[in-house]
Parts: sequence; C-alpha cells; structure tokens
Amino acid sequence: MSSLDATYAVVMAGGGGTRLWPLSRRRRPKHMLPLLGPDSLYQTTITRLQGVFPPERILVVTTQDQREALHAQTPFIPAENFLPEPAPRGTAAVVGLAAAVLRARHGDQALMGVFPADHHIGQPARFHGVVRAALTLARQGYLVTLGIEPTYPATGYGYIQQGEPLGQIDGWPAYRVQRFKEKPDAATARQMLAQGGFSWNAGMFFWTVGRIWEEFARQMPDVHAAMAQLQQAWGTPAWEATLARLWPHLRTQTVDYGIMEGAQQVAVIPAQGLEWSDIGSWDAVWALLPKDDAGNATVAAPALALDARGNLVYGQAGRLVALVEVHDLVVVDTPDALLILPREHAQRVREVVRALQDRGQEALL
Amino acid sequence: MSSLDATYAVVMAGGGGTRLWPLSRRRRPKHMLPLLGPDSLYQTTITRLQGVFPPERILVVTTQDQREALHAQTPFIPAENFLPEPAPRGTAAVVGLAAAVLRARHGDQALMGVFPADHHIGQPARFHGVVRAALTLARQGYLVTLGIEPTYPATGYGYIQQGEPLGQIDGWPAYRVQRFKEKPDAATARQMLAQGGFSWNAGMFFWTVGRIWEEFARQMPDVHAAMAQLQQAWGTPAWEATLARLWPHLRTQTVDYGIMEGAQQVAVIPAQGLEWSDIGSWDAVWALLPKDDAGNATVAAPALALDARGNLVYGQAGRLVALVEVHDLVVVDTPDALLILPREHAQRVREVVRALQDRGQEALL
Repeated sequence: MSSLDATYAVVMAGGGGTRLWPLSRRRRPKHMLPLLGPDSLYQTTITRLQGVFPPERILVVTTQDQREALHAQTPFIPAENFLPEPAPRGTAAVVGLAAAVLRARHGDQALMGVFPADHHIGQPARFHGVVRAALTLARQGYLVTLGIEPTYPATGYGYIQQGEPLGQIDGWPAYRVQRFKEKPDAATARQMLAQGGFSWNAGMFFWTVGRIWEEFARQMPDVHAAMAQLQQAWGTPAWEATLARLWPHLRTQTVDYGIMEGAQQVAVIPAQGLEWSDIGSWDAVWALLPKDDAGNATVAAPALALDARGNLVYGQAGRLVALVEVHDLVVVDTPDALLILPREHAQRVREVVRALQDRGQEALL
Repeated sequence: MSSLDATYAVVMAGGGGTRLWPLSRRRRPKHMLPLLGPDSLYQTTITRLQGVFPPERILVVTTQDQREALHAQTPFIPAENFLPEPAPRGTAAVVGLAAAVLRARHGDQALMGVFPADHHIGQPARFHGVVRAALTLARQGYLVTLGIEPTYPATGYGYIQQGEPLGQIDGWPAYRVQRFKEKPDAATARQMLAQGGFSWNAGMFFWTVGRIWEEFARQMPDVHAAMAQLQQAWGTPAWEATLARLWPHLRTQTVDYGIMEGAQQVAVIPAQGLEWSDIGSWDAVWALLPKDDAGNATVAAPALALDARGNLVYGQAGRLVALVEVHDLVVVDTPDALLILPREHAQRVREVVRALQDRGQEALL
C-alpha cells in the first residue's frame, strides 16, 4: 500500500456531553443519539465521511464501553479501526493516539483529518469539497483547520483569524492562521464579526502524521514520548498493556491549546455554506428540525398544541404532549426525567446536570 | 325510628369532569383522585360530612361503574346507601332519586342535605356549624342553599342574591333568596361584588323530602311521576327494573334551573370563612397545595427548579421534573399524557379534551 493512499479520517467519539440532558447521559452520549432522524449523529458522521474516506480508512477513537455499540452501528468499519481511549484526557491525547497508530501503519506521509462525531452538516457535498481541499493543503505540510463562517456573534466558540492568503486550493480560498482566539465575550464577538476575516473553530483538523508528530515533539514532548512507545507497541501483544500503562499519565489538554496555538505553518480554509451546527443545545436541535406552521418541532411524541408557538417537544412514542399558550419552550420527555425550559436558556441544562451531580443523583446522569 | 332522626347527606359522586385532565379521566373522575393528599376528594368529603351525619345516614349517588370503587374507599357506609345513577341526567334527577328513596324509607319529614363529592373546605368545623343551621332552617320548610362568600369577581359560578333577612339561625344569618343569577360576565361579576349581598352558588342544598317533593310535583311533574314510581319500587324486587325503565326518559336538568330558580320559600345562608374551593382548575389545585419559597407546588414527582417560580408540578413518583426559568406553569405528568400550560389559562384544559374528542382519541379521555 502506497503512503499516498494512506489518507484517514479520525473520528473523535469519546465525548460525554451534558448539554442535551436528559436525552444524553454519560452512558448514552450525544453522538449515539438519533437526534435528527433515524440514524445517530455518529452514524450520520460516518456516512458523510464515506464521501471522501473508504470505511477501512476511518479510525474511531472512543471509550471502551461505547466501542461495541458504535461498531454495531457501523459494522463495515474494521474492528481494529476502533481505538479505545482508556479515560478522557482531552483531544491532544486522542490525536496523539491516532497519530501513533497511523505512523505504525503507514509512516510519516500518512494524512489524517480529525472530525468530531456529533456535528451536523446540512450540505455534505460542499463538505466533501472543502475536506479534499484541506487534505491537499495538509499534503503541502500545513496544519489545516476548517473554519466555519460565523453567522452570529457567538460566544460559545473559539475563533480563527485569517492572515496571509495562500490562494485557492481546489476552488477554496486558504489563509495562514494569524491567531486562534478563545471563546470571546459578546462585545469582542460582535467586533470580530464586524471586522471580518474570522471563522469559528469547529475542531476539524488536517495534517500529515509527520507534521503533527513534529509538533508534539516540540510542544508536548511528554505526550510525544508516550506516542513513540505506542507506535512501537501497535500490532504487538504489548499494545494493550502499553496503552494502559501510559495513558493515565498523559496531560489532559485539547489539541487547540496544546498544539494549534503554538504550531508553525498553520492554515485555515473558511468554509461557507456547510450549514454546520455542533448541535450544542436543545435550541440548536429545534433550529435543525422541521417545524409546523406555528414553529413547533415535535419528535417521537404525539403532540397537541393550542396557541403554542416555537416549542421543541422531544418526547416518547405513545405519550401525548399537550401544550397550551406556551411559547419557545424546550420540553424533553424521557422515561425517568422531564425537562422544561425556554429555548433561549437552553445552555442552562448544564446547571441542571451540575445540580444533579451535587445531589448525588447518579442514576440521572 | 323517628322521622326526626332521618337527616341525610346525599353526596353527588357521579360527575366526570374534564378540567383536571390529564389526571382526571372519564373512568377516574376528579372526586376519585387523591388531589390534595392521601385521600380522594370523595373520601375527604365523606370524612367531613361525618361530623354531622353518621355513616348510615349518608347516601352516595354515583354511576354503576364507580359504585364498587367508592364503596371500597368508604366501607363503613352501608352498601344499600349507594344509589346507582344509570346515566347522567343532571342533578335534578339525582335529587329526585335520592328523595324517592328517602320518602320510601322515612316519609316526608326526612331531611336531606345535598353535597358535591369533589369540593374542598379548609374549615370543616365552621362547615359543620353552617350545615346544622341550614338543616334547622330546612326543618322550618325552607329550601336552603349554602352560599359561599365571593372572594373575587368570578365568572365561573352562579350567584345568589340575598333578599329579606330571616334572622340568625344557630348564629348564622339567613336570608330569603331574591334571585339566582347565572354565571355572569366579568363586568356584572365586579358590579355584584361591589354592591354586596351576593353569594356564590356552590350546589349545596337542604330541605325536607316533603318540600322538595312538592316542588318537583309543581315544576317538574314528569320527573315527579317517575319519583313516585321509584318510591313504590324501593325495597322491592322491581326496584332495578323500574329504575332502568324510567331513568332514560328523565329530562336532563340541573336542580338549580329545574327547581331552585322557580321554587317558593327559598333561603340562603351566606357562609363566610369556610375556605371553600370547587377545585375547578389546575390553578385552584396550585392555590390549595403547600409551596416552596419560590411558589412552586410539587406533587409526587421529585422536582428540580432553577429560577423557576409559581409552578405546579403534578407528576409521577420516580420521574424527575426539571424546570429552568419557567414561571406560573401547570405541568401535569401522567403515564400516557403530559400537559403544559400557564396557570392563568388553566381553564383551557377543556379545549384540549375537546380536541382529543374531535380526534377520536378515546384512550386519553
């Protein structure tokens, strides 16, 4: 197999996620939920990636307890492509793990794209185009980030500022990254939107194994040392023991802070028109679902709305939800918990989860 | 047995009631629900009446399918005191049925008080006092209504206007009734409250069997003819067949319109301080329940409220209800239906029930 063919998607499917409680739980994280249709977000992500990557070139990094369920949802991905993440250590460790395995399999020329498992993209054909462009740029030695065109002054995302233009790559404009900007306050977000040249950081990255290896060696040498041992152990009987021995000592860090912010030769391709959403709240779920004339979106439950507008009802089959004169609410009905809050306060679900943690109500988490 | 001892409470426990849907259903009417505590409203009504009436002097008029359940809730009431109402024909027929049975048992001198099975009275000792006064006045030949002191300009109740004073009866002031006034519009209600001398009609009546018999003969002769046949049949093998034969032909009418409005010698005792409620809406349930510091009342369900005020959560054991930033809502969670509406629109539950009827969703009614 030529190294040029070794182009991989690495899907990060280990997250927990509390923002879609009570539907999402520790043991049933967001990417495993069929939130927007019959398929789970993970399945939809894999289907979308298959437009660029054949199944044997998709690695899934997940937790031990999700591995079997995810493999069952995508049986066409080889079992050895599911990499267990022994415990949450952040995306830097996940990227390091995947890079170690790919270096063992294909060497430094292997290309990897990193993707979250739980995002929505409404225009998959455009996505395939920009992913191909990003891989092209990565092949030239750049660490490439896919930037999402901001549609409002969001304070919930990091931003990427464009620098020097790198020209058109397969029809997509590319830029050197001037800087990464952490989640801003509202005023800063408005100012960046007005100024232009900023994208949202959606956590999608592209690089050769050699380039990311080099950056780990320079910026996170402790993780790099572990990665080198993992590379050696891959495919040997020592693999599992090595992973179990090294993993607990890894620094918990994101790849954004640990690598990207201090990396050399970083590029961004601002992607317009992907209809991207990280589905980061129930309000985002409402926005993505089809609605009736009154703006109510209903999933699973039969619903009856009298002068009720703009609500999301995420219910259970066979349980009627009757709404009268309530507007812009989120109603999530699960067997053991019911959540009601205004869409505009959808972010406060985290506080509910925190309160349940404080009360020790583990069964509901 | 002396006729003087023949003083009966007639409890009307046949109603359906849709205003507390989805908890109340056709087969589980409001008076059978333990709405405000461990006992059903019916049980609480019987307990309250036992302050004046011994169990063998309590008649319960109910439907055939509720008879067994109600007897099980109050086994100390003799089985023969449960009178089956073959089909809903309004309170006039119910009163006529009870009067026929009491006339057969005790003759014209028997006294009867008529009570709904599903009202709340916060001050039972005062209630006992006013009931005794009403019976005293009834013994003098009056048809007596117990008037409820209006606390706001309600449009959901009929009103009773006081006429000529009849003096103090056992310490309670009594008046001739000047007129009954149907449910008024808001302006009329406000005007009556400002004017004074009006009570709410709570459907509690007191009279001798002879007096009500006479009024039926004069005002509802068709019903009176049936009552006379029922009186003859009581205690004979022909009772059930007679009831089954006559009942379907009875006019559907309330005792208010059919008898009281046109009756002679009608009195009212305005009862202050009973803390009466007909629990006619979920808002009324909220008003009667204990509340937390934020004004939330919670029944059965464990609840978690974050910046949520004034809500009623009527839930199910073991199902958490989490509320964030929602205020003055009614949330009623039952196994097959969930209702959410503002307390101030609690009356609109009827429209939900009507919509379910229109859709033919019998299982939810």
